[in-house]
Amino acid sequence: MESCIFCKIARKEIPAEIFYEDEFSVAMLDINPVNIGHTLLLSKEHYENIFDLPDELLAKLSVNAKRLAMAIKKGLTADGVNITSNNGRAAGQLVFHAHTHIVPRYSGDGFTHWKGKRGYKDGEAKEVAEKIKTSL
Amino acid sequence: MESCIFCKIARKEIPAEIFYEDEFSVAMLDINPVNIGHTLLLSKEHYENIFDLPDELLAKLSVNAKRLAMAIKKGLTADGVNITSNNGRAAGQLVFHAHTHIVPRYSGDGFTHWKGKRGYKDGEAKEVAEKIKTSL
Repeated sequence: MESCIFCKIARKEIPAEIFYEDEFSVAMLDINPVNIGHTLLLSKEHYENIFDLPDELLAKLSVNAKRLAMAIKKGLTADGVNITSNNGRAAGQLVFHAHTHIVPRYSGDGFTHWKGKRGYKDGEAKEVAEKIKTSL
Repeated sequence: MESCIFCKIARKEIPAEIFYEDEFSVAMLDINPVNIGHTLLLSKEHYENIFDLPDELLAKLSVNAKRLAMAIKKGLTADGVNITSNNGRAAGQLVFHAHTHIVPRYSGDGFTHWKGKRGYKDGEAKEVAEKIKTSL
């Protein structure tokens, strides 16, 4: 897409610290890293997010994400790795070109889980599960 | 694995709000939801996390995660969805049986991104990228 910053990066029209590339994807360092080595894996073709990413491409990207996670763990001697996609503005997506975050983690690095505000009331979990199930 | 809680759930030895199942995976509500509808997708077979998950199974799970994310968005009228795997204790993994979090998100629900403590010093990004690249 003409105006998309990640399309421009994939076409090498904008510089980025790209360290992996194949026929369908590019991996680069995030310029605002959570931890040093925080990587973004993008599809070369433009899709907005996971909702419109074709299954076959998604499957190949997920295998690349695993491979990158293993390299990040080994190369940066990380203790763990988060692999995340934020889909939609409400989920924290900032660039509307499908990408996955691969974040090296270290014991005691201070990043914690989100805590939910409440659990399920009696019978609510079943109702919620049913709503998702009927939308599958 | 005998003592693994997610293996027990997949074998139906422990109750859980399972709303999707196929030959290789199970999806259920997380009992400590970030937002109501927070879902966990597990492989039926026991693997510790993404690092030892076979590529073929990972690819199939990623397509299931997308399908579940779309159903969660539609069924719960969410504005966005985070799809995350925490691999290793340092990354927040609590149950050592491979699983993916699928979290419905709503505009203004108050969950924010982790902010990194610093960016890259001059020349550092290139060095870090090189360390990952040589471990690929």
